[in-house]
Amino acid sequence: MMDVLKDVNRRFDHAALKPQTTKTDIVTLCREAMEHDFYAVAINPVWVALARETLADSRVRILTVCGFPLGASRTDIKQIEALKGVYDGAHEIDMVANIGWLQADDFISAEREIAQIRDNLPHNVALKVIIEAGILTDQRQIEATKAVINGGAQFVKTSTGFFGGATVEQVLRLVETAAGRVEVKASGGIRTLKQCRQMLEAGATRIGSSSSVSIIKELADPDPRM
Amino acid sequence: MMDVLKDVNRRFDHAALKPQTTKTDIVTLCREAMEHDFYAVAINPVWVALARETLADSRVRILTVCGFPLGASRTDIKQIEALKGVYDGAHEIDMVANIGWLQADDFISAEREIAQIRDNLPHNVALKVIIEAGILTDQRQIEATKAVINGGAQFVKTSTGFFGGATVEQVLRLVETAAGRVEVKASGGIRTLKQCRQMLEAGATRIGSSSSVSIIKELADPDPRM
Repeated sequence: MMDVLKDVNRRFDHAALKPQTTKTDIVTLCREAMEHDFYAVAINPVWVALARETLADSRVRILTVCGFPLGASRTDIKQIEALKGVYDGAHEIDMVANIGWLQADDFISAEREIAQIRDNLPHNVALKVIIEAGILTDQRQIEATKAVINGGAQFVKTSTGFFGGATVEQVLRLVETAAGRVEVKASGGIRTLKQCRQMLEAGATRIGSSSSVSIIKELADPDPRM
Repeated sequence: MMDVLKDVNRRFDHAALKPQTTKTDIVTLCREAMEHDFYAVAINPVWVALARETLADSRVRILTVCGFPLGASRTDIKQIEALKGVYDGAHEIDMVANIGWLQADDFISAEREIAQIRDNLPHNVALKVIIEAGILTDQRQIEATKAVINGGAQFVKTSTGFFGGATVEQVLRLVETAAGRVEVKASGGIRTLKQCRQMLEAGATRIGSSSSVSIIKELADPDPRM
């Protein structure tokens, strides 16, 4: 088996998405991301400009969200939110699909919305689509992943983290459905190196976590029981 | 003591705000609201136009949200989201304040944002501002309520319901601070007639709940133990 933990720091979207996150928290998050050379910080839209300034001399990327975390915004609002995020400095957009449409098996509407957001983003901005797998049946997770692929996004992402965490079974299902056409981001409740390794072994290529620093420290100083 | 439960159905914002809420759920919600003559339905933006059609021949009002439930959107996005909600048919807007600013004691920025949203809404659209009281210290709840008053909103609202429920203590604190200058909406975790009565006795004038129907039925057919 290949070593999934090689350069694992570059797999992390280091996240601070709680409502009570402050300006100080965002600066700390960015400094941690620079120190550990994480791939990106994952932050709410109001903080993107601050993160851009804080990260100016680093290669850490910025991702922000749209329609987050409910996915029940109007499509035009998701679109303008994504574009404003890019204008402020975001390199990636994590949008929430319309979960109500997925839940009602209206995958066509979900795909059309994803395609509209994708078509209006600059080509070099990656679009990830959150399907909130923990809420959906297995079959709907598969159909939702197909909608993400057909909509032209770059990643399907398991969860927002607000409605239950990602599971290995979900990641395996999404990876199998994706068949290399989109990458899979696992996020929600990933707090240990063990969980992180399981997600990467299942085929996830990106990990969203607010515990990135403690996970990386666990790697440097492994628990002797593991 | 006056009978706080007189016409209590008219105190209810009947809510369906989960990500997995479907079109069918929204139609059901609207029918329930008409049947019980609730004051309003509380729904996410993507469903407002559907609710307007479904409620066309009733006096049930529509409220939708902006910056919900994290409050960490850009102000301009909150503003356009509120306006689009009104265009679609909403009579009231429940916006989430920037909780990160409140948490950092930056009440001026919070007040300025509220004022901007208020100033750009039609005069006959009520603005409620959610301060997510369960996250804030007592003192910050008071200062946040002052920012809501000074920003010109019509209501201060305890919670989104996604980060813990409203308490009687919070409602008493907000009502005392408001001193009649804004109304107080209690929401989050209100599932019984007893809780509802406590909130109204504490001075709340509006109740947000997804259990409105069972609460009203409790009133019609009271539990003999109460």
